[in-house]
Parts: sequence; structure tokens; C-alpha cells
Amino acid sequence: MLEETARWLEPVQHTLDRYLATVENAHLRAAMTYSVDAGGKRLRPLLLLATVTTFGGDGERALPAAAALELVHTYSLIHDDLPAMDNDDLRRGKPTSHKQFDEATAILAGDALQSAGFELLAQTQTPPATLVTLVQLFARAIGPFGMVAGQVMDMDAQGKPLTLPQLQQLQAGKTGALLTAAADMGAQLAGAMPADARAVHDFAAAFGRAFQIQDDINDVTETAAQLGKTPNKDVAEGKATYPSLLGLAGAQEALRAAVNSARQAVAKVSVPAPQLLALLDYFRESK
Amino acid sequence: MLEETARWLEPVQHTLDRYLATVENAHLRAAMTYSVDAGGKRLRPLLLLATVTTFGGDGERALPAAAALELVHTYSLIHDDLPAMDNDDLRRGKPTSHKQFDEATAILAGDALQSAGFELLAQTQTPPATLVTLVQLFARAIGPFGMVAGQVMDMDAQGKPLTLPQLQQLQAGKTGALLTAAADMGAQLAGAMPADARAVHDFAAAFGRAFQIQDDINDVTETAAQLGKTPNKDVAEGKATYPSLLGLAGAQEALRAAVNSARQAVAKVSVPAPQLLALLDYFRESK
Repeated sequence: MLEETARWLEPVQHTLDRYLATVENAHLRAAMTYSVDAGGKRLRPLLLLATVTTFGGDGERALPAAAALELVHTYSLIHDDLPAMDNDDLRRGKPTSHKQFDEATAILAGDALQSAGFELLAQTQTPPATLVTLVQLFARAIGPFGMVAGQVMDMDAQGKPLTLPQLQQLQAGKTGALLTAAADMGAQLAGAMPADARAVHDFAAAFGRAFQIQDDINDVTETAAQLGKTPNKDVAEGKATYPSLLGLAGAQEALRAAVNSARQAVAKVSVPAPQLLALLDYFRESK
Repeated sequence: MLEETARWLEPVQHTLDRYLATVENAHLRAAMTYSVDAGGKRLRPLLLLATVTTFGGDGERALPAAAALELVHTYSLIHDDLPAMDNDDLRRGKPTSHKQFDEATAILAGDALQSAGFELLAQTQTPPATLVTLVQLFARAIGPFGMVAGQVMDMDAQGKPLTLPQLQQLQAGKTGALLTAAADMGAQLAGAMPADARAVHDFAAAFGRAFQIQDDINDVTETAAQLGKTPNKDVAEGKATYPSLLGLAGAQEALRAAVNSARQAVAKVSVPAPQLLALLDYFRESK
């Protein structure tokens, strides 16, 4: 990955560590930290920071907002893995939170990480009016109009055939909303022009589609060791995926189209944006 | 209850209704609405609004912040009732969310209500700098430093004898933090002087203690029909309560002491505060 983009991995980790270290309840701190440090690629923080720096904003000052995205992403994974939801025992090769601890702890660690995301976001060093906009964007993206709505659609779709537009709508909420929020928040923090803000929003949306298609393809083509979780789980559960709807070759074609859309969106940005293109390579290498 | 305090019940309901009506996913909207409308007394919104109006602030403009408290309170009840937590089938005489719907829906409705709380809070009509302070107070109160920490202590304490100071610490997080946040946020919205802000904070803390002691007393003295849930559940589960630690007479004495502390805190407010005193009567009447 481009060094300009990768250099933020350590500051993001430091911001997460510093926040989590202050949690006084040892049991809760352990559960929150376990999942935050379970090997995530920090795509959402890196996307926010790549957007901020593309438009000449101050990445250091944006770190709390970047880390907030990771806290909320982690909460969503913990809750998605619960027995009542996807019932996954492994995530990235490690026991999921409710397996490592117990179900009550997993629910509460997720709940705490959501609040923690807002708490950290509210520490971002930016004018108050911008910060209020960030809180609005963030809440809208992760709540009943975004990520949670996508997850409800996912639950409701189990065992039912979805059409491609329905699958796209589901994933626009479940994984797309937080990614586009990362770009939107980065654009706000850097004071990007509206056309640039739209271009990075479109980049993030296409990036999210590519990410999801790649994930679906990996589910049918990779082994458990490569995936760090049970393979062919989507198929076993009768979940609609890109390969199930389009076939493997069709899904690979859709992946190429999404990556192309992402590149085209970057081409519309009024300044060079190698940091954004680097993210596209990063997620494809690191899967 | 004092008419000045009660008059806010309908505007709070209207604010909640208007927000919930916009949730597009019908399944999620139904689950969120079911629990928000399950008969809560709206104590936290009324406390915020009583504080705002005591100091001459604009209650109408504070309604989103007031309703945000109720959304988050509702989320906490839904998650507390889950099988992995308190495993309650009834709340206020109605099936709990996971009984009425299913566990996945209850988890997600709670998750969505937490985000919704921040979304609604961020719509409060107040200067951005004040709004940032409100988000900070709110997140601190409900997350790993407040309400969730209290719930983790509650889970960890099951079947273990707690001392009175431990029980007080648990409840200061679990129920106290959101009540004191309501007062703190109200004081910020009204621009109250620091001494007044401290006085209403102390009022809310004492109010929270009184509320919890009353709840513990009700658990051993009332029938299922009066409680709207299974009586003697705390005793059956070996949970430390005020009556178990102090005896019933001792708990009643502690209740009187907490109510007196609340009255004394109101006496320190620099202006007459009948709205706050009315809340004390309201919760005692309406249990």
C-alpha cells in the first residue's frame, strides 16, 4: 500500500489504544479491546484519513473521527456474530466475542463500542458546527437508516431468494453506509468542495460494492484457513450472494465493474488522489 | 403531577412519533416503536425539560434532546431483557421485545435506538458548541463509563454478594448516569450557572437512588399485576438489592433519605424549581 496511506495505521491504533486504556471496568475493557484488536484492516479509518489528506486537511486532528469508525465497525461485527444473528464461532481466525467471553459480554461490549464511537468522534478537533455535521452523518449511517437497516434486511432475507437490486440495497446499508460516511466525514473535515465531496462519496460507494463482492467470492473460493472463518457458509444458509445470483464468473465481472467505478470516481476528484487508489489495492491484497 | 411538568408528555411523544415514523424499514420501525411506546413514564425527558424550563430555557427547542434520552433508555431496557442478560419475558405487563419479535430483532432494535438517540440529539436547536457538549455528556453517560459499565457490573454480580457501596456504584452507572446526564444536558441547554448545574446534577443523582430503592422495594412487596413483570425475581436470582442488604425497613429508610437529599438539592437551586419537585411526586405516584 502507498506509504502515505499506510502511515496512518499506527496513529489510528494509538488513538484506539489510548481510548480503550481509559475504560475502568476491566471486564468490559478486555472485551472491547479483544475485538478492536482482532486483526481488522482499519479500512474505514484509512478511508477517512485518505479523504482528509487528499483535500489538504489535517490527518492528526481527524484521528478521533477515524478511530470512531473502527469502534462502530467492531461493534457491528460483534453483534453480527451473535448466536441470534449469524452465529459465527470464528472471525479472522479467532473466537468471536461471545465464544471468547459470553453472550452477555458480547452484547454489552458491542453496545459500549457504539457509544464509544460517538464519544471519540466528539473529541475531534474541528469547529463545533463541523462536528455537529459529523455526528449527524455518523448517526444516520450506522442507525435505522443505514447499517442496522441493512442488517435487519439481511436477517429477514435468510432462506428467501433476493433479487440483485435487493442484495445491493441490503449491502448498501450493511457495509456501504459506514464506508460512504467515512468519505463524507473526511470531506467535511477537510472542507472539500461539493463536487469533490460527491466524487469521494461515489468512490466509497463503489469501493463498498467491490469489497462486498470480493467477500462473497472469497466465501466460495477460499479455505477456512484463508478466510479465518467457516467457508461456504453463505451457500449453506441459502443466503443470496453475488456468486449465487450471477455465478462466479459473473461475480468476478461485477467486481471488475465496481473497481472501475471506484477508479472513475477518483478521476473526478479535482486534485490527485493516490491515497484513495492505494486503498483499492490494499483491500484486494490483504483479503 | 404539576401541570408545568406534565404538559411536556405530549410534545415528547410527538417528537418520538415523528422520528420513528420516518424509519423506512417496516420491521425495524415496528420493533423500535413497540418498545418506545410500551408504557414508559418518560422520566428522563421530563427531567431534562424540567431542568431547562427551571432556568428559563426553551423547552420546545430542547425536545429532540429530551426524546433522545427516551430512545436510549428504551434501547437499554430491550437489551437488559434479552435471554443472555436478565431473560425477562414481560416488561410493564407486555411481552419483551425478543418475545414479541425475536432475539435478532430485539438486538437490532436496541442497536438502532442507540444510534437514533444520537441522531435526534444532533437535531437539537442550540448553538453547535453547546451541542458538542451535549453529545459528549450523552456518550459518556451511556457508554463504557456509565450505563453499560453498570450493566456489566450487574452481570458480573449475579449470584455474588455485593456490599452496599458496590450496589450503589453499580446503580450509579446502570440507572444513575442517564438521569444525571438528563439534568446536566438540561443545565447546558438553559445556560445555567455552575452552582445551579451542580445542584440539579445532585438532584438527579439522589432522584436516581430513590428510584432504584423504590424499584427494589416494589419487587418484594408488589404482585405481578402491579409490577407488570415477575415479582421476587431479584431474590430468586440472588441479586443484591436494597431490601436484601438493609431489610425492608432499612430500605424504606434509605428511600426517605434519598428523597430528602433530592429535596435538599432542589433547595440549593437559585430559582424556584417546582417542576423538579413535581418529578419526585410523579415517580412515587406512578410506580
